[in-house]
Amino acid sequence: MARMQPIQFNLPQERIPRVWYNVTADLPVPMAPPLHPGTHKPIGPDDLAPLFPMALIAQEVSTEREIEIPDPVRQVYAQWRPAPLYRARRLEQSLDTPAKIYYKYEGGSPAGSHKPNTAVAQAFYNKEAGTKRLSTETGAGQWGSSLAMACAFFGLECKVYMVRVSYNQKPYRRALMEVYGASVTASPSTETEAGRAILAEHPDTNGSLGIAISEAVEVAAKDPETKYALGSVLNHVLLHQTVIGQEAIEQMALAGDEPDVVIGCAGGGSNFAGLAMPYVGRNVKGLSKARIVAVEPSACPTMTKGPYTYDFGDTGHLTPLVKMHTLGSTFIPPGIHAGGLRYHGMAPLVSHVLDLGLMEAVSVQQLDAFAAGVQFARAEGIVPAPESNHAVAQAINEALEAKREGKARTILFVLSGHGHFDMQSYIDYQAGKLENYEYPAEEIAMALAGLPTFK
Amino acid sequence: MARMQPIQFNLPQERIPRVWYNVTADLPVPMAPPLHPGTHKPIGPDDLAPLFPMALIAQEVSTEREIEIPDPVRQVYAQWRPAPLYRARRLEQSLDTPAKIYYKYEGGSPAGSHKPNTAVAQAFYNKEAGTKRLSTETGAGQWGSSLAMACAFFGLECKVYMVRVSYNQKPYRRALMEVYGASVTASPSTETEAGRAILAEHPDTNGSLGIAISEAVEVAAKDPETKYALGSVLNHVLLHQTVIGQEAIEQMALAGDEPDVVIGCAGGGSNFAGLAMPYVGRNVKGLSKARIVAVEPSACPTMTKGPYTYDFGDTGHLTPLVKMHTLGSTFIPPGIHAGGLRYHGMAPLVSHVLDLGLMEAVSVQQLDAFAAGVQFARAEGIVPAPESNHAVAQAINEALEAKREGKARTILFVLSGHGHFDMQSYIDYQAGKLENYEYPAEEIAMALAGLPTFK
Repeated sequence: MARMQPIQFNLPQERIPRVWYNVTADLPVPMAPPLHPGTHKPIGPDDLAPLFPMALIAQEVSTEREIEIPDPVRQVYAQWRPAPLYRARRLEQSLDTPAKIYYKYEGGSPAGSHKPNTAVAQAFYNKEAGTKRLSTETGAGQWGSSLAMACAFFGLECKVYMVRVSYNQKPYRRALMEVYGASVTASPSTETEAGRAILAEHPDTNGSLGIAISEAVEVAAKDPETKYALGSVLNHVLLHQTVIGQEAIEQMALAGDEPDVVIGCAGGGSNFAGLAMPYVGRNVKGLSKARIVAVEPSACPTMTKGPYTYDFGDTGHLTPLVKMHTLGSTFIPPGIHAGGLRYHGMAPLVSHVLDLGLMEAVSVQQLDAFAAGVQFARAEGIVPAPESNHAVAQAINEALEAKREGKARTILFVLSGHGHFDMQSYIDYQAGKLENYEYPAEEIAMALAGLPTFK
Repeated sequence: MARMQPIQFNLPQERIPRVWYNVTADLPVPMAPPLHPGTHKPIGPDDLAPLFPMALIAQEVSTEREIEIPDPVRQVYAQWRPAPLYRARRLEQSLDTPAKIYYKYEGGSPAGSHKPNTAVAQAFYNKEAGTKRLSTETGAGQWGSSLAMACAFFGLECKVYMVRVSYNQKPYRRALMEVYGASVTASPSTETEAGRAILAEHPDTNGSLGIAISEAVEVAAKDPETKYALGSVLNHVLLHQTVIGQEAIEQMALAGDEPDVVIGCAGGGSNFAGLAMPYVGRNVKGLSKARIVAVEPSACPTMTKGPYTYDFGDTGHLTPLVKMHTLGSTFIPPGIHAGGLRYHGMAPLVSHVLDLGLMEAVSVQQLDAFAAGVQFARAEGIVPAPESNHAVAQAINEALEAKREGKARTILFVLSGHGHFDMQSYIDYQAGKLENYEYPAEEIAMALAGLPTFK
């Protein structure tokens, strides 16, 4: 025993958090309200009622610090939560760094990512409210498969619009959703007005998350028995993910360490916020001084290159306007393999916290992300999802910087999911077929030029 | 808290077993010795020395009850061990059964199955002995990817002969091995005499585990820096898996339960033996009276239809003769999706325990196995590997029998791995493309007729 080093810092079932943590209660400035797409006036709960059950709408606008997690949700969480916190000792060794690297691993959920943390909560509240069917979109498929699973658990039907390029490239992710009993359609589809409109203009389009959102929202808005579920971006979704950070804080204490830097990849922002927001709250309260770093792909540099302004959440402009870092809701990012990071915007909450100077954002190129993923897999065994590779790359950057400085540094990152459904991207990477992308300045300028203006 | 039901029964890192359990010490009759393929005389350690390091040969023939697990091996185990024991409450509910169903989940290892339990041990002992490279075969790919990972951890090269049908059908499993840095070749290949001989006779063959073993053994036998590693069948391999059952016994005690029946799927026999042998030992000592049930596919019914006799482990007849249940070493089973269960023989240790009447064997048809897997996934979230579906199917059979009898029954099975690399099989199943297989009586009779005879 004496000769073994601890590498897992785990908590028993009873330490699953009892509440979700709402960082807005601890922020010095409130968030800008979402606006009605037609009137440009702040929307109220009734505007969202066709899409979401009231319990989730209440969470979306809540300023309460803590929101109790219902027992049936905690009961399902208990299958994979508290999720493990690992010390990456073999990776540290291979980097020959004085830094300590910890990672919170969310790939142990049955669907393989952090997404079930909110999928289960959303399915529960919808079931309680009498919803019969949930519609949603998915890109890489992590979200769609998680919602499909949660719907199976709670006896809901599940309808998934899957971005066409992923639908074609990832038949196995689609199969996973179908094993769970979901119905999966390639987006844009001919089933919706939004889909038909896009197809008329761009019959060969690869699709995008923004388009798929339009389709899923449309079917929910038109059918009273169907509600809509979103896998990221919204406040209540990020809220549900805060179990990650709350557990991590307790686990880092078990490890006897305090992170100097806290890292997550960010597409819509949910796994990042899940780890980061509880640390932002600690920082605000003066309990810690961790740097908080979001990592985005250079091909879709929402936070590092996009303005902080009002934009639509979807391409079809059916959603409310939200204030966020955006590349323009009509921007369709390059087809990088980190499908979950190909969203034109960033969660309003993450954008707000960035705007307040309470966190940083950096971008990582695709090839660097995969190089980091392969290095991580050979040291730690877990093959990360392409999205998570961005967090791995930044963690390695920080460890190597510590080495150059000859100083200790305690690094904590969230490994949001495994890459077992993403092996084609590793095949392409190892075959030299992947490339980096420069900032697509002209396309983004065009998309931004189309943003709504306000007096 | 009071309102939550415990569903995980987990142990802390320090409860990782300190020894592997060798059931032969507790059996009333010793195992029949392996015989030299030429002389038909019992082989000695020296005969195996070209293939394995001495530490593993010593374990292969050991009659010690307990063999200490080296600290570096336990240190790697600590990443995913003790593995979780779950109570399948949602599955119980969906079956409306009075039975309790527990499962020991081995799919949480970084490679997704139980195979790293022995891969890590084998890589460690080989590294200690100065081996530079390990050669092996893989069918479905669970073993190959596990050994590739273990070799990455210990700085060994890894050469994998992958059964051709899997090589073609499972590019992602191959990619996983390559991410870990292994070199993967479709078998039969032109790299070996064994491969060239088979190709000359059957140029379009799908390959088989038996053929791939011949190739991997041949390259190890010819190169002093290369040793051979086997993922199942042999005593030392089954020994390493006994961490599964030792942990399960402790975890069932945590759950306050004792299994009435202990179930595992069996191809070569290693995950089954890993869970079962510690329970066999308890039964022999009178500490428990659990029924021990191995589940095999109807398409490859080694234990339920094959005789218990001496046969070769491989198709090319390079290995020693071992006494086992076999369908004949030249038998090539139908191309069922549970690739890990397509082996012509059964581990000599499992065959011996079966012969002693200390366990039972049953067979399950392919369609029943997949139906069980889908039912399990929708209730428990985890999508099992096609191999594991056979154990799931038998667990459900037992639960439904308990329901018919209106009696309680405590069921424990090992879920050996997840099916994230096997989604094509689920696609084929849901598309109605899979079929059951009848016992291929004529082919087996032919293969058995070719067995060696002894005076």
